[in-house]
Amino acid sequence: MSSKQIKVAVVGGTGYTGVELLRLLVNHPHVEIVAVTSRSEAGQPVAEMYPNLRGHIDLAFSEPRVEMLAAADVVFFATPNGTAMKMVPALLDAGVRVIDLAADFRLRDAELWQQWYGMVHACPELLDEAVYGLPEVNREAIRVARLVANPGCYPTAVQLGFLPLIGAGLAATDHLIADVKSGVSGAGRQASVGTLLCEASESMRAYAAEGHRHLPEVRQGLAIAANGEVGLTFVPHLTPMIRGIHATLYAHVSDRTADLQDMFEQRYKDEPFVDVLSAGALPETRSVKGSNMCRIAVVRPQGQDVVVVLSVIDNLVKGAAGQALQNMNIMFGFDERAGLNAVALMP
Amino acid sequence: MSSKQIKVAVVGGTGYTGVELLRLLVNHPHVEIVAVTSRSEAGQPVAEMYPNLRGHIDLAFSEPRVEMLAAADVVFFATPNGTAMKMVPALLDAGVRVIDLAADFRLRDAELWQQWYGMVHACPELLDEAVYGLPEVNREAIRVARLVANPGCYPTAVQLGFLPLIGAGLAATDHLIADVKSGVSGAGRQASVGTLLCEASESMRAYAAEGHRHLPEVRQGLAIAANGEVGLTFVPHLTPMIRGIHATLYAHVSDRTADLQDMFEQRYKDEPFVDVLSAGALPETRSVKGSNMCRIAVVRPQGQDVVVVLSVIDNLVKGAAGQALQNMNIMFGFDERAGLNAVALMP
Amino acid sequence: MSSKQIKVAVVGGTGYTGVELLRLLVNHPHVEIVAVTSRSEAGQPVAEMYPNLRGHIDLAFSEPRVEMLAAADVVFFATPNGTAMKMVPALLDAGVRVIDLAADFRLRDAELWQQWYGMVHACPELLDEAVYGLPEVNREAIRVARLVANPGCYPTAVQLGFLPLIGAGLAATDHLIADVKSGVSGAGRQASVGTLLCEASESMRAYAAEGHRHLPEVRQGLAIAANGEVGLTFVPHLTPMIRGIHATLYAHVSDRTADLQDMFEQRYKDEPFVDVLSAGALPETRSVKGSNMCRIAVVRPQGQDVVVVLSVIDNLVKGAAGQALQNMNIMFGFDERAGLNAVALMP
Amino acid sequence: MSSKQIKVAVVGGTGYTGVELLRLLVNHPHVEIVAVTSRSEAGQPVAEMYPNLRGHIDLAFSEPRVEMLAAADVVFFATPNGTAMKMVPALLDAGVRVIDLAADFRLRDAELWQQWYGMVHACPELLDEAVYGLPEVNREAIRVARLVANPGCYPTAVQLGFLPLIGAGLAATDHLIADVKSGVSGAGRQASVGTLLCEASESMRAYAAEGHRHLPEVRQGLAIAANGEVGLTFVPHLTPMIRGIHATLYAHVSDRTADLQDMFEQRYKDEPFVDVLSAGALPETRSVKGSNMCRIAVVRPQGQDVVVVLSVIDNLVKGAAGQALQNMNIMFGFDERAGLNAVALMP
Repeated sequence: MSSKQIKVAVVGGTGYTGVELLRLLVNHPHVEIVAVTSRSEAGQPVAEMYPNLRGHIDLAFSEPRVEMLAAADVVFFATPNGTAMKMVPALLDAGVRVIDLAADFRLRDAELWQQWYGMVHACPELLDEAVYGLPEVNREAIRVARLVANPGCYPTAVQLGFLPLIGAGLAATDHLIADVKSGVSGAGRQASVGTLLCEASESMRAYAAEGHRHLPEVRQGLAIAANGEVGLTFVPHLTPMIRGIHATLYAHVSDRTADLQDMFEQRYKDEPFVDVLSAGALPETRSVKGSNMCRIAVVRPQGQDVVVVLSVIDNLVKGAAGQALQNMNIMFGFDERAGLNAVALMP
Repeated sequence: MSSKQIKVAVVGGTGYTGVELLRLLVNHPHVEIVAVTSRSEAGQPVAEMYPNLRGHIDLAFSEPRVEMLAAADVVFFATPNGTAMKMVPALLDAGVRVIDLAADFRLRDAELWQQWYGMVHACPELLDEAVYGLPEVNREAIRVARLVANPGCYPTAVQLGFLPLIGAGLAATDHLIADVKSGVSGAGRQASVGTLLCEASESMRAYAAEGHRHLPEVRQGLAIAANGEVGLTFVPHLTPMIRGIHATLYAHVSDRTADLQDMFEQRYKDEPFVDVLSAGALPETRSVKGSNMCRIAVVRPQGQDVVVVLSVIDNLVKGAAGQALQNMNIMFGFDERAGLNAVALMP
Repeated sequence: MSSKQIKVAVVGGTGYTGVELLRLLVNHPHVEIVAVTSRSEAGQPVAEMYPNLRGHIDLAFSEPRVEMLAAADVVFFATPNGTAMKMVPALLDAGVRVIDLAADFRLRDAELWQQWYGMVHACPELLDEAVYGLPEVNREAIRVARLVANPGCYPTAVQLGFLPLIGAGLAATDHLIADVKSGVSGAGRQASVGTLLCEASESMRAYAAEGHRHLPEVRQGLAIAANGEVGLTFVPHLTPMIRGIHATLYAHVSDRTADLQDMFEQRYKDEPFVDVLSAGALPETRSVKGSNMCRIAVVRPQGQDVVVVLSVIDNLVKGAAGQALQNMNIMFGFDERAGLNAVALMP
Repeated sequence: MSSKQIKVAVVGGTGYTGVELLRLLVNHPHVEIVAVTSRSEAGQPVAEMYPNLRGHIDLAFSEPRVEMLAAADVVFFATPNGTAMKMVPALLDAGVRVIDLAADFRLRDAELWQQWYGMVHACPELLDEAVYGLPEVNREAIRVARLVANPGCYPTAVQLGFLPLIGAGLAATDHLIADVKSGVSGAGRQASVGTLLCEASESMRAYAAEGHRHLPEVRQGLAIAANGEVGLTFVPHLTPMIRGIHATLYAHVSDRTADLQDMFEQRYKDEPFVDVLSAGALPETRSVKGSNMCRIAVVRPQGQDVVVVLSVIDNLVKGAAGQALQNMNIMFGFDERAGLNAVALMP
C-alpha cells in the first residue's frame, strides 16, 4: 500500500461538498492541499468562510486556472453542473487525474445528459472514458481511471440498496420503487427561500416527483446490473434535517425462499463502507452522520412478495466528498479507508 | 344547523391527543367541557400541566368515574389502547355518545384486533355497531352513531389518498405501497429514549417495517372500498419534526387515459377538510400544521403506469383530535367546520 | 363594545409578518379584507403563495395604490423599513387609520432614526403624533390614534419584562442587561445564506452584539418609564427554531424585601395578553407559539441582589401581527381579544 | 513525546459522555480499550447499542469490577454523580490513574458538595488531591495527577470566557453574569418527558434559574483566579439543538482603554484548544460541533463599560469527553492534540 504524499487541488471549495471535502482532506495522511479555488471568493482565507477549518488550513481561495491546477496530482471538482466539463480536457492533457463531484460525467449518453441538464455537453468524447465512481461496482476501473464521475447522493444510496437483489436476478425490474428522503444540505449552500430554516424545518414534502435528475443516473446503473432496461419510480423528499439520505426501496421478489439477509451480507462482506445490519435491525441516518458508511437492512414484511430495502448514507460523505476521497484512495493505491475512519457523530 | 350547547368530557387528557382536543374544544362555540380525567394527575389544574391552556380552562384533572361521565352528552377517550373498551358499554347504557380516539373499536374483527393489540377485546359485541369515523366515507352513519371509532393518523392519510383511485376501480389492489412519514408526536408523550430530541432529531428511520398496527386498519378500509382484499406494503418512518404525516402512495394504474386530477377533485369537491391541490403543486406537511385539513396531490411520473399520491395531514388534528371534533360536529348537527376554522401555522 | 365590520388593507403581504397578519385577520369576526398588496407578486392569488390560506382568502395580491387603500378603514403596513413613511401622509389625509408593523414611526427622534436605519425620514413631522403601540403602556392613546407604530419583537418582550421593576423604581437603571434569543422567523422570508436550515439549525450564535436596531427603541421605552436615561446592554441571539423570543433580563435590585411576584401580578392583572406565571414556574416559548400571549416570570437567584426576569412571546404574534391586531381592536372599539383567542400550539 | 500504548477502561459507557468518549478513543493512536462497563447492559455488544461504533469496537459491556479495571493504565468514569467516588479509592490504591467526567471531585469543599448534590461524599480525603482538569489553568498539575476531576460543560465555557478578564484584574467580580445556552444532550440519555423532541424542540426556556449545580463549580474556579469570592448570576437555558454550549458573559470593566482583543489573544496564544476569533467575528456553536475547540470573542458594545464575552464549545467534547481525552494526553505525555484533530462537522 502506498504511503507517498500527493498534491491535491479543489475547484469550487465554497459549497457544502467543497467544505466537506476540505474537512476530510486536511486530516488525510497522504494529502497536501495545494489550491482551493473560488472565483467569487478569491483572496479570502478559506478558514474565514468556514471557521471549523481554523487552524487546519492556511490557504486562501484562488482563481481557478489550468496552469496552476496542473501542478496537482489530482483535481476535485466540487462545482455546479456544467463547470468541470469545460476544464477537464485540458487537465487530462496535462496529465492530471480528475474526480468530478458534479454530474458532468455520470451519464454515458450525451443526449440524455443534455435533456436532463439543459446544456450541450462540452466534451462528450470523454463520457466513455469516464469511470462511474461507485467503488462497490467499479473498483478495478477506478484504480486506473484518469477521470472519475463521482456518483450523486441519491444514486449511491439507491444503487447500493438495489444491487444485491438485481444482481441475483431476484427482483422484478419493471416496477422498482425508490422513495428517498434527503436532508436539506443536498440542496446546497446558495441562498433560496425554499431551504430557509423557516420553510424547510418542521415540515416534510416531496419534490420533483415528475422526474428528478438522479432518475436517469440510477436507471443507468441498475440497467447495467440487470443487463437490460429497468422501470423505476423515484420520488425524493425534503426532510427537516441537515445531513442524511434514507432510501426506502420496494421490489417484487416472487421467490419467497431466498435468504435475502445472507445474500446482502455476502454481496458486501469485503466492502469497507457498506454495513449490512443484523437481521431485525433497521438503519437510521444519524448512525452515519459525518461518516463514509452506508448501512443497509432488508425486510420482507409479513412474508409477502414485496421486499423492502432500507439504505442510509450521509449525503455529503458517502453521497459526495467521502466517496470522492475513497475513489482517490483507490486511484493512488492508498488504504481505501485512509482519512475516512471517523466515527459517525451520535448523538 | 344546531346552535345548542353540549356537555363534553375528555377521558385521558394528559397525552398529546388529549391536550390537542382541549386546545380545540375550549374555543368551540357549542361546547362546555365538564370533565377532564386522568388517574395519575387527578387534582392538578389542567392548565398547570399545559401552560398554553392558561386562561382557557379552569378545570382540574379528575378521576374517571362512569357516574360523573354519564352527565356529559359525549365522552371522548384519548386514552391508551384497551382503556375505552372497559368503560364504553356502561356509558352507552347511560345514554352517552362516545368517540374513541384510540384503537379499541377500529377493527371489526375481534380476533384480528387481539392479534395486533395483544389483548382480548372486552366488548366484541360492540364492534359491529361502532362506526369508523372517517367522515369522507361514513358521514351518514356517523350522524346517528352512538359509538365512533376515530381513525388512526396513518390510516386517515393513507385512505384519503388511495380512496379515489380504488373507488374508481383504477388501481391494481394487489400491490399497493404506502411509504409514510410521521412527526414524533405520533409516538405520544410518554418518556422514552427513542423519542428524545437527541435520538430523534437530525435523523430519519423506518420502524415496524415488518408490520405496524395501522396496517390491518388501512387494509380493512381499503378492502371495503375495493370490495375485496387488498395487498398493501406499509412502511412508517420517524421524521425529525413534531407534527405532520406525509403519505407517499404508489399504485399501478394501467389505464393511462384517466384524468386523475379531475377524478380526485370530483371525489372531494364537497369535503370541507380535503383539499386537492392544483395540478403540479405538491403538498407540504406544514401547510396543515395545527389545522384539520388534508391536502392531496396526484402525479403520474414520466407518464408511466405507476401513479403517486401525496397526502398530508397534521397527525394530531385530522389524524386525531380534529377529526374527533369533526365527528362530534356531525353527530350533534353542528356546522362541520365549527371550532375547526383555524389557519395552519406557517411558518 | 362595537360589533360593526371594518374594511382592512394589508400593504406588503408576502413576508412572514404579512402572512401572519392574514392568518389572524381571515378569522377576525369584524374584519373584511379588501386588499393585500405586493408589487412583486401582483396578480398572484394570495393562497397560491401561502397554501395554509387556501379556502380562507380569495384575493390576489394587488399593486399598492393610495386611492385604492383609501377605501379601507385601516391599513396595515407589513413592509420593509422605510416603505410606510412614503405612503402614510397621503393615507392619513384621506382619513384612513394606519398601523405600521415596521420601524418607521417607532422612534420619536428623526436623527436617531436616521442614524440606526440609514435613511432620511420622509415625514418626521408625524413622529410626535404616532403612538407607540404597546397597549400595556399606551392603551388610551392607541384608542384615538390615527397612526400606530407597532413595536418591534425584541422591544415588546424586553419592555414587558422590565417595566414593572422600572415603574416601581426598584431597578438600578444604569446597568440593565437584556440577553435575548429569537427564532429565525425574526429574520424574515428573504433568501439569505445565514438563515438557511443548514446554517441556522443545530447552532446558536449571538449577532449584532455591537448594537442592534432595537436597542434605541427599547431604551426610549424604558427611559419614559424611568423618567430618565437608562444604561442597557442588549445582545440578541439566533436560536434554532422558527418562532419565539425568550428575553432573559438582569437588573440590580438592592431592596431585597420587595415582593416581586406580587408586584408583577398587580402590574398585569387586567392585561388580557400578559400572563405572570405562578411563583417557581419558568416560561417556555412554545407555550405562546401562535398566540398573542406574553408569559413572564421573575426570580431572585440565591436571594442575591440581581433579579432575573424571563419573558417569552411569539415574535410573529405578540411581537408583530397579533399586537397589530390588538391595536386595531383597541382603535375600533372591539373586544381586545377578538380574533386573538387561539390557544398556543403545544406540542 | 510519548508514543507508547496505554490500556484504557471506561466505566459507564452507555450515556452520551460515554459513547462520545468511545467515539474519540477508538481512533486514538496510543489507546487500547480494554473494558467498557455497564451494569444494566452487561453482555450486550457496545456497537449494538451504538451502531455508529460498528466496525470500530468489538467489546461487549461488562460488569464494573475493580480487579478488572485495575489492569488499565487509566480509568474514565462516565457515570452519574456519586458513582465514581465509591470506586476511586480502590483504583488509586491499585495504581490506576482516574479521570472522572462526573462531578464527584470537582468541588474542594465536601460540605458544599453535599449541599448541591444531596449525598454525603464517600471519600472527602481525596478532594484536596484531585486536580481540576481544566488544562488552560492546571496543565502542570494534571500532568502528574493520579485523579483528575473533569470540569462540567457549563463551567468550561464560562471559565474560559471569564478568565482573561478576571486574571487581568479588569472585571468587577461582584456582579458577573453568565447567561448560558445548552443543547439538549447536556441532559443525558435517560428517558424523560422534558427532553423529548416534542417538548424540547421548537422552544427555548431557562431552567434552574434559582441555582444550578454548576454555579458553585464556576464560582470556585473564578474565585481562585480572582483571589477572592466572586458574585455570579448564572442562568442556564435549554436550547433546541443536540450539541453545543453558548455562554454569553457580562462584566463591568470600568477601564475603557484596555485592549481586550489583544489580552484574550495573548492569554490563549499557546492553547491548542482555545481559539480567539478575529475582532468583529462572533462564534457559533456549530463551528465546534464534534470538535474539542473552544471559540471565543470579546465585545464592548457601544463602547460602554459593560463587556460581553461569547464562548462556545461542544458540551460533549470540550465540555466532557474531549477534555477528558486532552487530560489523558497530558497525563501520559502524548501530544495534547492526539485523537482530537477532527474538524467540526459543518454544516
